[in-house]
Amino acid sequence: MARRNRMEDVIEAAIRVFHKKGYASASIQDVADEVGMLKGSLYHYIESKEALLARIFEDSAGQFEEMLAAVAKLEGPPVERLRHFARQCSLWYLENIERVAIYVNEWEHLSGKRLKEVKRIRLAYEQQLGGLIGEVKAAGEARADLDVNVATYFTFGALNGLPTWYRRRGADPAEAIADRYAEMIVATVVGGRSAGAVA
Amino acid sequence: MARRNRMEDVIEAAIRVFHKKGYASASIQDVADEVGMLKGSLYHYIESKEALLARIFEDSAGQFEEMLAAVAKLEGPPVERLRHFARQCSLWYLENIERVAIYVNEWEHLSGKRLKEVKRIRLAYEQQLGGLIGEVKAAGEARADLDVNVATYFTFGALNGLPTWYRRRGADPAEAIADRYAEMIVATVVGGRSAGAVA
Repeated sequence: MARRNRMEDVIEAAIRVFHKKGYASASIQDVADEVGMLKGSLYHYIESKEALLARIFEDSAGQFEEMLAAVAKLEGPPVERLRHFARQCSLWYLENIERVAIYVNEWEHLSGKRLKEVKRIRLAYEQQLGGLIGEVKAAGEARADLDVNVATYFTFGALNGLPTWYRRRGADPAEAIADRYAEMIVATVVGGRSAGAVA
Repeated sequence: MARRNRMEDVIEAAIRVFHKKGYASASIQDVADEVGMLKGSLYHYIESKEALLARIFEDSAGQFEEMLAAVAKLEGPPVERLRHFARQCSLWYLENIERVAIYVNEWEHLSGKRLKEVKRIRLAYEQQLGGLIGEVKAAGEARADLDVNVATYFTFGALNGLPTWYRRRGADPAEAIADRYAEMIVATVVGGRSAGAVA
């Protein structure tokens, strides 16, 4: 049990170190210093820097996928489900800003099976978002000329930009920013039409 | 004159190589092979890989700033100027997709004065976009609850995501995608209100 908690400490320390210094510049020694452990002891928990990065990705992916699965269960009109999805994703990003920044900036350092897994999750995320935007269109609630693919990538880019600027300028509470992101994503898809208007 | 054109060939070759292999993995030898020159001859044009990257940035920044300056001269209602800005930026990105991908992905490899210059341009770009969004709000044409800063970063993220997905899935003509991006950016700012409605 103590060992398990210590493993979590190691991961949290690595997240802080990789986020602050960048994965390429950070060393196992930096992580050991951050967690307050001798470098030799750290190797009982993790065999290499790449394995540590992979572990951060697995851990973050697991949490992110749980959030996506919870959002997918929600019922209601497509626009409301899109709003909820956008809000929950934005909030997850903001509450896990260091994990997300590592995810967005450092995934190229993975290889083989681990890289494949990251790409699988990214695709599932894109498809869930794209599916929702498609449902809004199918329900006749999207702007007339909406291109579902282009709108999906547009929205995806806006979401993935969050950890970059929030790190630089974070001041507003996460909840307020998540609400604004959700409204802007709905507006992107619904467009010039009034949100409550009948077609 | 011949020397000048050869320098342009070197830059274009470096753009292709850095885009394809990534700056960190690419070598001066790869660039020499791409341009069809001996490595020794290449050093008459450029002193190092970092200098070559810096030259690509200077060159791209110059072209990008010319586009921004041209857009800034346009007169008309704020919403139309925002639409035009969004369209021209999207189009510039799409027509210079390799340059933009290098700009977005490799700027961390710069240092000192060069890094400062990239940050200055990024800030000027953000401010021009933010200024336009602010004008739409001041004109009473934005959604009631618009937060100009958050909307600016949201839009900026969507634009900067373009080179990532377009590289993977590019099929539609650039003009059509630029039109769609412009409409979505206007919708983000104007929101649920009908575009033509009177306040």
